[in-house]
Amino acid sequence: MSLRIIATGGTFEKHYDELQGKLGFAESQLPEVLKRARLTVPVELEVVSLIDSLDMVDQDRQDILESCRKSTEKAIVIIHGTDTMRETAEVIGAAKLDKAIVLTGAMIPYKIDNSDAFFNLGFACGVVQLLSPGVYVAMNGQVFAWDNVQKDRSAGIFVSKS
Amino acid sequence: MSLRIIATGGTFEKHYDELQGKLGFAESQLPEVLKRARLTVPVELEVVSLIDSLDMVDQDRQDILESCRKSTEKAIVIIHGTDTMRETAEVIGAAKLDKAIVLTGAMIPYKIDNSDAFFNLGFACGVVQLLSPGVYVAMNGQVFAWDNVQKDRSAGIFVSKS
Amino acid sequence: MSLRIIATGGTFEKHYDELQGKLGFAESQLPEVLKRARLTVPVELEVVSLIDSLDMVDQDRQDILESCRKSTEKAIVIIHGTDTMRETAEVIGAAKLDKAIVLTGAMIPYKIDNSDAFFNLGFACGVVQLLSPGVYVAMNGQVFAWDNVQKDRSAGIFVSKS
Amino acid sequence: MSLRIIATGGTFEKHYDELQGKLGFAESQLPEVLKRARLTVPVELEVVSLIDSLDMVDQDRQDILESCRKSTEKAIVIIHGTDTMRETAEVIGAAKLDKAIVLTGAMIPYKIDNSDAFFNLGFACGVVQLLSPGVYVAMNGQVFAWDNVQKDRSAGIFVSKS
Repeated sequence: MSLRIIATGGTFEKHYDELQGKLGFAESQLPEVLKRARLTVPVELEVVSLIDSLDMVDQDRQDILESCRKSTEKAIVIIHGTDTMRETAEVIGAAKLDKAIVLTGAMIPYKIDNSDAFFNLGFACGVVQLLSPGVYVAMNGQVFAWDNVQKDRSAGIFVSKS
Repeated sequence: MSLRIIATGGTFEKHYDELQGKLGFAESQLPEVLKRARLTVPVELEVVSLIDSLDMVDQDRQDILESCRKSTEKAIVIIHGTDTMRETAEVIGAAKLDKAIVLTGAMIPYKIDNSDAFFNLGFACGVVQLLSPGVYVAMNGQVFAWDNVQKDRSAGIFVSKS
Repeated sequence: MSLRIIATGGTFEKHYDELQGKLGFAESQLPEVLKRARLTVPVELEVVSLIDSLDMVDQDRQDILESCRKSTEKAIVIIHGTDTMRETAEVIGAAKLDKAIVLTGAMIPYKIDNSDAFFNLGFACGVVQLLSPGVYVAMNGQVFAWDNVQKDRSAGIFVSKS
Repeated sequence: MSLRIIATGGTFEKHYDELQGKLGFAESQLPEVLKRARLTVPVELEVVSLIDSLDMVDQDRQDILESCRKSTEKAIVIIHGTDTMRETAEVIGAAKLDKAIVLTGAMIPYKIDNSDAFFNLGFACGVVQLLSPGVYVAMNGQVFAWDNVQKDRSAGIFVSKS
């Protein structure tokens, strides 16, 4: 089984710009992150965007959907901001592609102390290989169906709707 | 679904003893690691041993097997040294428990730069929730059946036997 | 010789607030940082403020000056934001206290990958023990007199005025 | 003022060899470390050896002394293992060179969590610019004269002899 990993930005990828004195985006950190993971499964990395998911517009989600559609890999992990992860999952979920697609992200950027990013990526790379075709959100050590997930912003965790 | 995580030691848990000037074991780092993972699934952590897997004797593996047997959780992740991970997997595999049991570990200790430990833990915590009952080794982003895995020591990766 | 370390906030102390999704201040990280430094000289830590130095007003600088004045230690390190480090140095410098006072900070927060914070603190703790009474800025591995230093914002470094 | 930094190995430089499963030496990490320090003073880095200081023989110390002798920089920092730092300091001290020479190192390798290495380097780079010609050991936030220092191995700190 081979994997496609689609980078879109989000907290996972934020880095500190020392001249601006704030967090932003530079190059994707995923090449370095994937090397560290020592994967022996074939992985195709595709950087679709590097933006905060609050800044995503419809076209951005269509671009991600298009990448999923074109993917020859049947297992896809999407690195995405948590704030609108559900919205993007809904767009892709509605397309009913015959692939297992898992969205994940991070509450703390990969480059910042105590980040959950690397764990979440590992979790997503695992479940995506075993899940039936469909669209899922994987956060907090849980897999959620795309149409039954929401972010509890005050607690900073993902939960089922019902 | 709830998880049991069994700590046995191994490279994952090694820490640097600054008075001795070498790597060894102190307290398990898993409480801190699991907190960082922000899991919302119930997790039971059990520290069975904190030793190098090259130092494991039969009794150590029997102790791990016994913990698996007693576990009320049906999904178990075992943190284990990579050098004899296969041997322990064989002991547990032969017992044919009705649980999904995933052994994982790390090539570089969690506390050392560029460690794969946190990714591997995430990967194992994901697949263990989806796998059928059985015993597996999860390393390098792959799931191996307990009776079809070996460590390629010169390359530092796990591969299928055949 | 004993040292006083005065925390005022600044980039050095910024931490990532995962619920807000941005950098801010929580508790001072200096107790942990100083423990890591394994100092055997007596050190008195005093947290005067935890703010961005761009948000400092006159009273904040007077508070820092007052702490310097009251200090029974003759060697004082002030952890400060880089953006107005010079301004605070000028306020303290003009007071002509009979103490060696060194302001330092960081271009990248202590908790973020590739931070210069820990080096700068070490540098400041070293030079403050050897400098004559006076007020200095220590950044980029250099000691500057308080009345001959400025931040080159486009390069992200401190330089002499002349 | 320009600095010479002489790398000799020691705990500071140890890295984890994942194939051997133990700590050893590979390339010097100092180019990366110095870049992170954002120094604007001119620095000349010289790697004389990369060994454990317990493995040093007379010739190794003579090589270090020779590098100090040849140095056109008047301020020299030597990164050295802590176990025989005093012995090397004595060899160089006896040569009475007209330069400020500061030996430092680390109790925990730079690449391992909670390391003091980066602080110690900052401390040494600071004091070496202010000290009179002579040979010193800088550890634990203190400067020791070469002929009045010893390592307290049970406490893991450096102390004066008297």
